[in-house]
Amino acid sequence: MESKSRRTFFQAATTAAFAAAIAPRSSAAEPAPAGAVAGGAFGAQLTPVPLPFDSRKLNGLSEKLLQSHWENNYGGAVKALNALRGRLSQALSDANTPPYVYNGLKREQLMRTGSVVLHDLYFANLGGSGGAGADLRTKIATSFGTFDAWEAEFRKIGLGLGGGSGWVVLGFNRKLRLLENYWMADHATAPVDVAPLLVMDMYEHAFAMDYGAAAAKYIDAFFTNIQWDTVAQRLEQGVVPVRG
Amino acid sequence: MESKSRRTFFQAATTAAFAAAIAPRSSAAEPAPAGAVAGGAFGAQLTPVPLPFDSRKLNGLSEKLLQSHWENNYGGAVKALNALRGRLSQALSDANTPPYVYNGLKREQLMRTGSVVLHDLYFANLGGSGGAGADLRTKIATSFGTFDAWEAEFRKIGLGLGGGSGWVVLGFNRKLRLLENYWMADHATAPVDVAPLLVMDMYEHAFAMDYGAAAAKYIDAFFTNIQWDTVAQRLEQGVVPVRG
Amino acid sequence: MESKSRRTFFQAATTAAFAAAIAPRSSAAEPAPAGAVAGGAFGAQLTPVPLPFDSRKLNGLSEKLLQSHWENNYGGAVKALNALRGRLSQALSDANTPPYVYNGLKREQLMRTGSVVLHDLYFANLGGSGGAGADLRTKIATSFGTFDAWEAEFRKIGLGLGGGSGWVVLGFNRKLRLLENYWMADHATAPVDVAPLLVMDMYEHAFAMDYGAAAAKYIDAFFTNIQWDTVAQRLEQGVVPVRG
Amino acid sequence: MESKSRRTFFQAATTAAFAAAIAPRSSAAEPAPAGAVAGGAFGAQLTPVPLPFDSRKLNGLSEKLLQSHWENNYGGAVKALNALRGRLSQALSDANTPPYVYNGLKREQLMRTGSVVLHDLYFANLGGSGGAGADLRTKIATSFGTFDAWEAEFRKIGLGLGGGSGWVVLGFNRKLRLLENYWMADHATAPVDVAPLLVMDMYEHAFAMDYGAAAAKYIDAFFTNIQWDTVAQRLEQGVVPVRG
Repeated sequence: MESKSRRTFFQAATTAAFAAAIAPRSSAAEPAPAGAVAGGAFGAQLTPVPLPFDSRKLNGLSEKLLQSHWENNYGGAVKALNALRGRLSQALSDANTPPYVYNGLKREQLMRTGSVVLHDLYFANLGGSGGAGADLRTKIATSFGTFDAWEAEFRKIGLGLGGGSGWVVLGFNRKLRLLENYWMADHATAPVDVAPLLVMDMYEHAFAMDYGAAAAKYIDAFFTNIQWDTVAQRLEQGVVPVRG
Repeated sequence: MESKSRRTFFQAATTAAFAAAIAPRSSAAEPAPAGAVAGGAFGAQLTPVPLPFDSRKLNGLSEKLLQSHWENNYGGAVKALNALRGRLSQALSDANTPPYVYNGLKREQLMRTGSVVLHDLYFANLGGSGGAGADLRTKIATSFGTFDAWEAEFRKIGLGLGGGSGWVVLGFNRKLRLLENYWMADHATAPVDVAPLLVMDMYEHAFAMDYGAAAAKYIDAFFTNIQWDTVAQRLEQGVVPVRG
Repeated sequence: MESKSRRTFFQAATTAAFAAAIAPRSSAAEPAPAGAVAGGAFGAQLTPVPLPFDSRKLNGLSEKLLQSHWENNYGGAVKALNALRGRLSQALSDANTPPYVYNGLKREQLMRTGSVVLHDLYFANLGGSGGAGADLRTKIATSFGTFDAWEAEFRKIGLGLGGGSGWVVLGFNRKLRLLENYWMADHATAPVDVAPLLVMDMYEHAFAMDYGAAAAKYIDAFFTNIQWDTVAQRLEQGVVPVRG
Repeated sequence: MESKSRRTFFQAATTAAFAAAIAPRSSAAEPAPAGAVAGGAFGAQLTPVPLPFDSRKLNGLSEKLLQSHWENNYGGAVKALNALRGRLSQALSDANTPPYVYNGLKREQLMRTGSVVLHDLYFANLGGSGGAGADLRTKIATSFGTFDAWEAEFRKIGLGLGGGSGWVVLGFNRKLRLLENYWMADHATAPVDVAPLLVMDMYEHAFAMDYGAAAAKYIDAFFTNIQWDTVAQRLEQGVVPVRG
């Protein structure tokens, strides 16, 4: 994929094993993430990943909404995150920076990092036909009792976030070895060490242009566009028994 | 390890591939996490993982402090999380539960889940001699410019959290392919899809008994007790190129 | 005002002094708040206060947006808050309710209380012509150096919240005796013991229907509609030297 | 009071009415707040208010704990808040400061402002004998059904915060005209336009030195030291029908 070959991760890595481990996988089926170029924690500069679907062809989510979401909310977060690295580097090298001032920047970094990563995941799990495969349905049912119980909880969390901000995430908790749904109040509210599988944006910019305050209608539309193959692939990769 | 053989993860998994993927790794060197027994998202019951070190032998962190931390804060979170699953199941099956009431429970679940997972990680990266291996130092230096720059930022974030609550985490961001330090204001503030490598508790219960309000002295003590082998092992496993 | 005479505050108050103190002021010029009827902390039921302006006549904020904002976001918060009181009462009287479960409800109550109060204040400081009186400009300039410095900060905070959620509040800090602008990340992030004077909603439901992601244009529109007389009146009342 | 005469509020106020309104009340019975000296929103410098009681004489709260709490946590917040004003002024005057960087500072300012104000209130409602007067008990009972119901809720909220951070506040909601207890997760989580009457610190620095993780014992101790006269006085002043 062209957008991937342009990118290099951790170019300055000095040990071969480390470099190999973090090389992009050629077999990855979903669009590459906003990849870090050389520069590391204080210098990495990201570029937005293009939408992995034709924004004119989703069901019930307009091109105007999707383009604005991608460009303004996701794109804006990428820009802000890039700019923050320089600010952090400068602040850290200044001995007069009090820790609480530094943490003001770190909080903003965490917010923008969450926004970039979650939007990447969100767009990549859209563009499908909305039907989960039998194997995936079984795995979800195994954890939640029934597939319907999973969906009921996922939707309920979303409804409760409507009119505010936040995300709903079905994730695999690597530490607890559990599939769970998570309530997240904003980009920086999240569970630790969880592989995100299905991500639904509940910020109002994800739906207000098309649905106004009708969050329930947006959730319906979201479900009809889920790219379940991506979800299945994430689960397959995410349960690799990494021990934290 | 005995405590591990007693545990079964996802016992009800109906597909062999899924069951195999989530089986505990026999080669894992660090103490097992608070493992989920059968029961899934609404029924899993955890048991606390014993301290992976002799609490009488850490440098500058007293047995009394460590035991109270393990029993009251970590143990209390395990108990609360276990109890919350039943409440969630009940609330979901009651059609009269408004979404915002349900999310009140989900927020508490997220907080306790974070507390359990982070405390597990924290205790497991204590008990060492405090010296990072050359390979790990190189990798950290690769991302942060120098190893000292990494340590300076990690400590500064910690100092800024002193007197309040929160965590400092060195993690590998699986999506951005970056080693980064994260500021986390509480158990539920976290980056998404990050493999946690080194975790420092900055809640006051981690040090007030021994150091009062002197957070800087606690951070010094923490550094002399870091189990770097665990950190190196987590990095090795965490950079497995799982694509989210 | 009719909507006010219908309401009774603290009807059950048993001491005359208390009852007198909390009686509604007949001279109040701005629309009444969502007033509490008898019932107290666990039983009070609020009714939404009508929009204090003709929603067809604001500059750059459409009737559709304003009606949806009032009905769905403000109205929804009133309903949720009313329902939460019964849940709280029930949960408190059940000895088996763990404190962390109770606090899940209290958090939701705080969020909805903030939403109700802030929306009341927001609508009541709209509908004007946008020009601050000389006396008020002087007072603001006294605290911020110049009136323009105040406006620059107020707008900058708003821009930083665009694309997410939150409020900007010019308030009089009763404890510190200072006029200050406050950044608030959501309905439950707020300064303590501050008299709110000018309140700007930065949740996306306040502007996305009319302006999409263009938060800056919304802020411009907001400024042209400020009801400065209300702000001046709030300041006059808010600086009553109540000591906390 | 000497500490008060040294202070001047809003010295630069240019209108007599404004100046008079914010003048300190000579009849105030409780210790003065951390008063703002001239300087306004970007320049005000606070000085810590001395403890309003003999720290050797409280029941079950040690001198060592109270002195550390006052000096390190409260005193540290005053220093940080003073330093932040200069940073804010500088950042605002620099046209290159992005809004999200500015808001990183504003968030820290809100946290420290909350810490200063809440600690002031907390210390000022300690030092008493723990018995509420009949009139106050009646007013509280009027709102909560019974005085015991109020106390049960206040304590339950506190227990739920134990082991983390936060505050419990009995306050008079000026907008809703209600006495209510509030759950607050940290210094910056608060209800809007509420007169705080009784404030209990649940950060671990408020008790860990004396009680370790035993939050319930601290709450018992807190109740035996409440200065109820201060609470009654705050209520009397707080219900002045200021309309927001």
